[in-house]
Amino acid sequence: MDAEIIAVGSELLTPYRLDTNSLFLTAELNRLGFHVRRKHVIGDRDEDLRDVFLRALERVDVVVSCGGLGPTEDDRTREIVAEVLGRRLKRNDEILREIQERFRKFGRTMPEVNARQAMVPEGAEPLENTRGTAPGLWLETDGKVIVLLPGPPAELQPMFVREVKPRLARRGAKMRLYTRDLRITGLPESDVDQRVASIYTQYAGTETTILASPGEIQLHPRVWSEDEPAALKLLDEMVKRFALALGENLFSTSGESLEAVVARELQEHRATIAVAESCTGGMLAARLTNVPGSSAYFRGGVVSYSNDLKSAWVDVPKELIEAKGAVSSEVALAMANGIRRRAASTLGVGITGIAGPGGGTPEKPAGLVHIAIADEKAAKERSFRFPGDRDRIRHQAAQAALDMVRRYFLYAPPAKGQ
Amino acid sequence: MDAEIIAVGSELLTPYRLDTNSLFLTAELNRLGFHVRRKHVIGDRDEDLRDVFLRALERVDVVVSCGGLGPTEDDRTREIVAEVLGRRLKRNDEILREIQERFRKFGRTMPEVNARQAMVPEGAEPLENTRGTAPGLWLETDGKVIVLLPGPPAELQPMFVREVKPRLARRGAKMRLYTRDLRITGLPESDVDQRVASIYTQYAGTETTILASPGEIQLHPRVWSEDEPAALKLLDEMVKRFALALGENLFSTSGESLEAVVARELQEHRATIAVAESCTGGMLAARLTNVPGSSAYFRGGVVSYSNDLKSAWVDVPKELIEAKGAVSSEVALAMANGIRRRAASTLGVGITGIAGPGGGTPEKPAGLVHIAIADEKAAKERSFRFPGDRDRIRHQAAQAALDMVRRYFLYAPPAKGQ
Repeated sequence: MDAEIIAVGSELLTPYRLDTNSLFLTAELNRLGFHVRRKHVIGDRDEDLRDVFLRALERVDVVVSCGGLGPTEDDRTREIVAEVLGRRLKRNDEILREIQERFRKFGRTMPEVNARQAMVPEGAEPLENTRGTAPGLWLETDGKVIVLLPGPPAELQPMFVREVKPRLARRGAKMRLYTRDLRITGLPESDVDQRVASIYTQYAGTETTILASPGEIQLHPRVWSEDEPAALKLLDEMVKRFALALGENLFSTSGESLEAVVARELQEHRATIAVAESCTGGMLAARLTNVPGSSAYFRGGVVSYSNDLKSAWVDVPKELIEAKGAVSSEVALAMANGIRRRAASTLGVGITGIAGPGGGTPEKPAGLVHIAIADEKAAKERSFRFPGDRDRIRHQAAQAALDMVRRYFLYAPPAKGQ
Repeated sequence: MDAEIIAVGSELLTPYRLDTNSLFLTAELNRLGFHVRRKHVIGDRDEDLRDVFLRALERVDVVVSCGGLGPTEDDRTREIVAEVLGRRLKRNDEILREIQERFRKFGRTMPEVNARQAMVPEGAEPLENTRGTAPGLWLETDGKVIVLLPGPPAELQPMFVREVKPRLARRGAKMRLYTRDLRITGLPESDVDQRVASIYTQYAGTETTILASPGEIQLHPRVWSEDEPAALKLLDEMVKRFALALGENLFSTSGESLEAVVARELQEHRATIAVAESCTGGMLAARLTNVPGSSAYFRGGVVSYSNDLKSAWVDVPKELIEAKGAVSSEVALAMANGIRRRAASTLGVGITGIAGPGGGTPEKPAGLVHIAIADEKAAKERSFRFPGDRDRIRHQAAQAALDMVRRYFLYAPPAKGQ
């Protein structure tokens, strides 16, 4: 069964704001067995609203719109949908009472303008809004469904889950979408595609999307099926073959972030970590502490941006900086060892590099980054040349450092029971 | 004059990927005098492609599409546009030579499949792609324009600027869009709206959008006008009145980030800074070092996550932590003073709080954050209760800390000439 999504709001036609609701709605609709065939973004002109609803209803079984349900005269969705369906607008006293009640709860009287929100097309079922004044609306016509939702995600999402999902599930198709979320690092997008394309093209009836961001590739195989066990078996088989082709570069088959994987490894090995950063300026520490409960394994970090603080805070010898330069393998190793001792942690990580745009030289250009990891017995360093601007370079460096920590544990046995 | 944007690609109808090209395209089209009336996202079904191009051409002067120009059989945009315009597909030898040349440059032979990219509708002008194989296409029909662009932003953006912009400028309307980008912090969205709504509603013919993210509100007044001086004067007047209404909460009228404003203040006052973070885990340091040239003012930072490192690294007395708790005004002040001394900087900032979801108590719930700023003579602390999840709390805390640094300089005279 097919669906279309209509995002209403003139602010969505400016250079400043994207419709993000459609990602949430697509995921939910797919799970319920609806294929999203088109998405539309329109402003608040009557002719556009009329046209988009009318034509979507001609094409698909379910039309979901978000936005345009506010109390002001710009909010025309209710009126236009009534017109498209040939129904009258009628005041719904239940909705009116709920809006008045909501204002009363916050110690205010309902402004007259909000009464417009209770004017709904005949036959519309109100969908309760637990987070705002605009109720959603459910309308049926000739076996098709129109769902009108408010624009703010904090209102739309719980409304969809509580009110729309059960109603759609009752009409839902047998065909459902099944999917997996694989995460890869250490390979560019073209390499990933080269390794996996010959696999996914063998599976007729499946679709696989590759999504790249700095330092990370996501791979999403998807299959529509009426037979859940068969779909899951098929995906398992694909994932197994992808895993073989990607090797150690694959760090999650369930959509985890790299820091979450690293957090789990640290905890499973009862290890702690501390980091000394220069060019990433705190981004690695921020990623590591992004995970709830990170105090169990993250001891602390320093951003030793200036050379004197590299010596004062993590014991990098002044002479070493003079001899090799602050951006060097040797300094990265000294930082990793230094922070490990200073924080009394199992592992220490040191990062030094040139994030640019300034500060580069022909021998040490922007994008050159040295990353070292040290434990009690040994230390290891890798040199990288990251492409892109300052922001991309810093992101890739933090990602590569996390990945070195992940790989450190690849062949280490988990800690023994206490 | 009106335009519509069509994003083509079945991956844009998954829960994983949004069309972001349309933000760039909208900004460029607006500057050229084109109003974006609708945006469409469609997959690669012929019937959908045909319908969306046909109807858009009925409505507007310029239709811009992105995606669907690749070499594979899924990429049907060229074929369908030829069909819609009633033209034949013809091989363009110039395009073919350029694609072959591109492969040669990278030491490869052109795969046969790429020859499809040289098959274009009769009368189409190729738009050079300096970053990839798919050329763009410019087509005119009955005084209307269709522009076909490749999907990857790194290919689309330079192509638009070099090839499309000058062509559209020649046909451009006299009416142009003028806009400003105001940034506000320290006020919730509803308060900002309350302060500015009575202003912007007085300016007929203008539109103002409010865009909220954690710890920051953006305000974008826009006006379409044929009269540039009048439009700029009008915007100046609006901005002046907004500034009066928003007071010190307004930190930029030109779309700068808060860290860029803080960087400028630090440099103008020849001041340096160092930070000691707990719950933000490095995010404040990362923001401060986000600005190119930050080594001029950023000395360094520590993430003293564990209590013992708060003592060892920034001299917070153990007894103070025991008496007041690690999350307390007193510890934030001690961290600010401690890091300032340890880094020998003009200013020190200390942050301690509970980012959640765990770790809260009835007296000290998740979201409670203490932030202190210290100079040589004095220190100041503020306590916050931030709403939202771990990520939002951490973002708001880093933002509030940056804002305390900005406000520190509000009444300070700039440094005297050297």
